Amino acid sequence: MKIELGAKNCLYPLPITLIGANVSGKPNYATVAFVGIVGRDSISVSMNKARYTNSGIKENKTFSVSIPSVEMAKETDYCGLVSGKDVDKAKLFETFYGKLATAPMAKECPINMECRLIQTVDFARGEVFIGEIVETYVSEQYLAEGLVDFAKVHPILFVMEGRGYWRLGDRFANAWEIGEELKSR
Amino acid sequence: MKIELGAKNCLYPLPITLIGANVSGKPNYATVAFVGIVGRDSISVSMNKARYTNSGIKENKTFSVSIPSVEMAKETDYCGLVSGKDVDKAKLFETFYGKLATAPMAKECPINMECRLIQTVDFARGEVFIGEIVETYVSEQYLAEGLVDFAKVHPILFVMEGRGYWRLGDRFANAWEIGEELKSR
Repeated sequence: MKIELGAKNCLYPLPITLIGANVSGKPNYATVAFVGIVGRDSISVSMNKARYTNSGIKENKTFSVSIPSVEMAKETDYCGLVSGKDVDKAKLFETFYGKLATAPMAKECPINMECRLIQTVDFARGEVFIGEIVETYVSEQYLAEGLVDFAKVHPILFVMEGRGYWRLGDRFANAWEIGEELKSR
Repeated sequence: MKIELGAKNCLYPLPITLIGANVSGKPNYATVAFVGIVGRDSISVSMNKARYTNSGIKENKTFSVSIPSVEMAKETDYCGLVSGKDVDKAKLFETFYGKLATAPMAKECPINMECRLIQTVDFARGEVFIGEIVETYVSEQYLAEGLVDFAKVHPILFVMEGRGYWRLGDRFANAWEIGEELKSR
């Protein structure tokens, strides 16, 4: 039997990200799980309008999306608990800049994606920043034969139900392949 | 050391979804991993313009986003391999309709979200449908104390690197909590 839950968002799990932006010329990091892929090279980042990071993204038209590992869960969670208005969160990480020069990235994250802001979608309580990826950086130890090995990355997965952080499990099948056998039916 | 990979999207894993839409009055299901949360009650679904489902979403201004389980991986993968132009994919599932009456949902999926199309963002090769959730349906056995238990849902997670389907691992921490201890530093 199906139970109605009201209009409850259950699109989970989503990967926890650290969104990097320069605000008033200083690097800042915000923890965001309301993200998605919009087109092959683009990412959407949905943020409450009140957040400190938004002004930096608008000012520079650049930001970064980084994938922290489970080993960085405390620091990552902390970046979602305090505002850059009050605390210098850049102290937690070693910051580096890439091609765009104004999108700070935390070196400790296995994966960093440098983005150019291409569109902003206005919502009632929030705004959605759509960024086109300009360059992707990965720490050497997470690469295997030219591909990023997510079993090594240990991304932090977020599920709003029960407000939990989860690990990635094992790889069990090939996409665009295991459904092939149903074609003959 | 950081290695540059070019503009490679590494925002993974993302949950695999089945997007339901009525096309020419008949239910159809498309497999989509390019999804995200945009604002608390809204979901973005990014689809190639050539896909059969898009015309149905535009016609009815409704669609559904469902979370299939690992146990449905073959059927789910198949829905991404063949087009509703050629095959009646609704045969694979038991379809039900909810409040919007034109957003078909597969009963076999643990979670179904019925959405009203509120915005379409045009992209070069694709389009992004933003849906506001109107009602969420969950199969009774996945509920525990009023919350959806994702350990039971067994969502299929997608990683483009290596084109794989992955399982959800275990819950290891509380969000908005494990970073608290860094506040005192």
